[in-house]
Parts: sequence; C-alpha cells; structure tokens
Amino acid sequence: MEKCRLIFSGSGGQGVITAAIILAEAAVIYEGRNAIQSQSYGPEARGGATSSGIIISDSEIFFPKVNQPNVLVCLTQESYNKFHTVIRPGGLLITDTRFVQTSRKVDARPRDLPLHYTVMEKIGKPIVLNICMLGAVVGMTNLVKAESILKVLEKRIPSSFMEMNRKALDLGINMGKELAS
Amino acid sequence: MEKCRLIFSGSGGQGVITAAIILAEAAVIYEGRNAIQSQSYGPEARGGATSSGIIISDSEIFFPKVNQPNVLVCLTQESYNKFHTVIRPGGLLITDTRFVQTSRKVDARPRDLPLHYTVMEKIGKPIVLNICMLGAVVGMTNLVKAESILKVLEKRIPSSFMEMNRKALDLGINMGKELAS
Repeated sequence: MEKCRLIFSGSGGQGVITAAIILAEAAVIYEGRNAIQSQSYGPEARGGATSSGIIISDSEIFFPKVNQPNVLVCLTQESYNKFHTVIRPGGLLITDTRFVQTSRKVDARPRDLPLHYTVMEKIGKPIVLNICMLGAVVGMTNLVKAESILKVLEKRIPSSFMEMNRKALDLGINMGKELAS
Repeated sequence: MEKCRLIFSGSGGQGVITAAIILAEAAVIYEGRNAIQSQSYGPEARGGATSSGIIISDSEIFFPKVNQPNVLVCLTQESYNKFHTVIRPGGLLITDTRFVQTSRKVDARPRDLPLHYTVMEKIGKPIVLNICMLGAVVGMTNLVKAESILKVLEKRIPSSFMEMNRKALDLGINMGKELAS
C-alpha cells in the first residue's frame, strides 16, 4: 500500500503509543519509507483513553493527522466506542475479545482477536500485549517485515526481554495471518 | 502563554520523545489544557537524529505539526545544525554545553546549559538527562507545574526510580530559573 493510516487506541498503560513509535521507526529506519506518528490529547485523555496515529507512506507526508484510518485497533471498550466511527470504509477494525464488545455496525472488516487471552496463556505477562497487537497488524497487512520490528526492539529493550517480545510478536503475526483474508 | 509550540531534538536514546510525551500528558491530564505531540520520521531518522514536536494550547489544536517553535531544545550537534534555523524569532533556543557548539547566528534567545555535566556530576546516570532538560524548559517557561510532571512520572516509572527523576527535574528547574530572564 502506497500510504497507510493507522490508529492504535486503548487505555494508558497498554502501550499503544510505544507500539506506534516502534512501527513508525521500523518503517523508516529499516524499510526506507516515510512515517509520522502523533498523539492528540484532549479532554478524553483525562478519562484514561489514549490513542496514537501513524501514517506510513512512500512519499512525503504533508498533513500529519490521521482522520480516516485504514487500520484501527481498539484495545478497550471506551476506545472502541469513541473511535469505531472514524474508520475508513472497508478498513480493518481490530479489537481484543477480552476487552471489547463489538456491537456497533461499521463499514469495515472487523477482526476480533484473543490478543490478551493468548498473551496471558502463552507468556503470562500482560506487558507484551502491545507487541502481540503489533504482530497481528503486521500479520494482516504485511505493512513492514517482522525483522524490522525486531531490530527496533533490539535497540530499545534489554536483551533479557527480547525473547518474550519476540514470542509476543510471533503469536500476533500468526493470529493476524489466519484472519488476514 | 495561550499557545506554545516546542521541538525537542537529539539522538535516539536521549529520551527526547519520552520527555515530549511526559510534557504533553502533564499539560492535559493535570492542567486541563489541550496538547498534541508528534514525531515525523524522514531520511534524517536513519542518521540517528530524532525530534518530537509538542503544541500546548488553551483552545483546540487544528494543525498538529510544529513549524516555528517558541522553544527549541537541541541535545546534539547534528540536531542543532538541522533545526536551529526553524526557531520562531525571539524564541528560546536551549542547547547542552557538552554536546553542542552554538556557532550559528539566530534570532533567538540562546541558552547553553550544562545539562549533561550536571546530571553526571550530581546523579551519575545519563538516563535522566531528558528529565533534567524537561526541568530546564519548565524552569524557564513556567509552561506546566513541576508537580504535574512528577504526577506523570509516578504513573510511568517504578517507585524506586522516582527519587533520581525528581532530583534530575529539580536540577533542571533550578538551572532554567537562573537563566530564564
């Protein structure tokens, strides 16, 4: 895809901003693309909802705000209720089975994934939920290579945490690939 | 100030993006303002330079990109060389004495601070350089209260690291206050 707009949303502490930064860095540093990543904080931030927008493009990006994402991830009910209406028609709407009830009708491809469940069962540490989510996004979209994300992680985190993160990424990629079509 | 635009720049690993996120969260969650924080990655990101823009405003923010910052922080020579021309006339240009030689003429108030030196002498851990820098910005501008930043830090980092971060913030605030006028 020449240009992909994404929004990752959830609650503070789920690591959606970190996931967005990792994705943008992977695309730019290891795949030679342009990216912008932003978060806008308004009154909703005081309620605990957090979100981050990412644009990845082959050409220069002039307007950095993500209005209609091709990919929307919602890791809490609150973020789903707030953001589900903004998705681009036909876009990919990824939610977590544990945290979100997807009751609303949207013109999008809904993908309800057991991200939290799988991370807790296979790894036991909720801290890598965001990396598993990133894996699911990559598994579905092929937006960047898994290796590019791993290279960013290697620079950012202590080597003793790499194994856990690699596993979370792989779990996400496999889930994403199964539900890609 | 009704609206303040800032750019924090440096090299990857100096924590300028984290500092930008902390500032934006402090302004929004604890001071009831609006904020947007972004990073744009182009070819320069592949060279190791990193930067983050922050806009803090009393009213809604429509265009999120920071073009002419009122406050520009440069923690490396590379980031200084790249960004010093974009500062708003009369703006505050904060550099680190250890990392930056401020040879260029700019229509700005230059403030060359021993951030790295002070952090190493008084704390001994370079990891809190970004928090000391944030303290200097706050000490000079009174943009947010120190307590708001401390509240964000308390939510983000383990309690065993709070003392070191609080000290780094205080060192920065004191340096900033001395050079504010």
